[in-house]
Amino acid sequence: MRIAVLGTGVVGQTLAARFDQLGHDVTLGTRSPAETLARTQPDSMGNPGIGMWAEAHEHVRVVTFQEAAAAAELVVNATNGEASLAVLADAGADSLSGKVVLDVANPLDFSRGFPPSLSVANTDSLGEQVQRAFPDARVVKSLNTMTAHVMAHPEQVAGGDHSVFVSGDDPDAKRTVTGLLTEMGHTDVIDLGDLSTARGTEMYLPLWLRLLGAVGTPMFNVKVVR
Amino acid sequence: MRIAVLGTGVVGQTLAARFDQLGHDVTLGTRSPAETLARTQPDSMGNPGIGMWAEAHEHVRVVTFQEAAAAAELVVNATNGEASLAVLADAGADSLSGKVVLDVANPLDFSRGFPPSLSVANTDSLGEQVQRAFPDARVVKSLNTMTAHVMAHPEQVAGGDHSVFVSGDDPDAKRTVTGLLTEMGHTDVIDLGDLSTARGTEMYLPLWLRLLGAVGTPMFNVKVVR
Repeated sequence: MRIAVLGTGVVGQTLAARFDQLGHDVTLGTRSPAETLARTQPDSMGNPGIGMWAEAHEHVRVVTFQEAAAAAELVVNATNGEASLAVLADAGADSLSGKVVLDVANPLDFSRGFPPSLSVANTDSLGEQVQRAFPDARVVKSLNTMTAHVMAHPEQVAGGDHSVFVSGDDPDAKRTVTGLLTEMGHTDVIDLGDLSTARGTEMYLPLWLRLLGAVGTPMFNVKVVR
Repeated sequence: MRIAVLGTGVVGQTLAARFDQLGHDVTLGTRSPAETLARTQPDSMGNPGIGMWAEAHEHVRVVTFQEAAAAAELVVNATNGEASLAVLADAGADSLSGKVVLDVANPLDFSRGFPPSLSVANTDSLGEQVQRAFPDARVVKSLNTMTAHVMAHPEQVAGGDHSVFVSGDDPDAKRTVTGLLTEMGHTDVIDLGDLSTARGTEMYLPLWLRLLGAVGTPMFNVKVVR
């Protein structure tokens, strides 16, 4: 499948590498490819610059948001939640029309420090905002309830025995995303229903952030037991 | 332990019966004991009236909120979240002073239908509201992330292999609640930290409500896997 991953942070890098490893045709979308590729120094956390990452993942082409989305069958919103609507507007409504848009972002507002609050919650969600802004896209919210490495390598937590959720209004789009999740190693994909159920998974983030503190590692997830 | 359960709904009944079964000295607090005991007809859901329940649980005394709280060592807020502050005010600040207050309520607002929204979220929680209103109480938020029957009989879901959270500012009060949870059969009690972490567990409710729809039974919970 031709997959465009929008966003060059840890989530975008991790998902793009995994989709590439699975044999998909992957592009990484960014505002300015030249500036992105010039970032070869480690960041403040010691992570290699995205330019180094790109050298190590030669099959993944780093292109503009618009180029990435236009050529893709499935577009992943892996941007910062606060920037998502602007980035998708940059990619362009025409490039997103008819496409499956897998939204993995969370609308976390860190402006008042830790813990962040949600900039949209309760009676709306980022997933629904994206769908309203791009009515011809087929938005599916998923993977936003775990850290990037668990998204991409679920088997590394409890052997993969945990749950991931999908929310969306288009059954075909949810099937496509569910197939991709299964390829990645997710074994318990729970369809929560229409896109308004994304309010539930986005509002789980404040609990996730506190669990991060209590558990002491981001390598955890929840399993729904019945 | 002398435990006062405030609230005569399904949550209050279920917890009171369980604490009684475990050998605690339990009272059930209500606004008007006489009116409560007169309710012997099944409700609209077919559940027996609380008067019938009281006859079947003769060790549990049905008394006023104030009487229940005043005599207790531990007070459980099992009221509707929208009514909790008023009920606790009725019980009286003096009756709650120094007591462990186990808050199991959620601030769900059903005024706009299903799914309910949260009447307080994001930068505050019902647990914190209770603590601010009764600064001499020692509030612990717990059990609010599952249905009443799972709170009381955790072994009936996946043999008890799932998680429950505690949030609170008083370490001794959290130890007391953790002991009670363990007696009830909870095996994975996760201390999330201070009472502000109750925002996380309360904001999990919108996801819980959607899982209820997806799973098709309230007899589920989440297990945090590492």
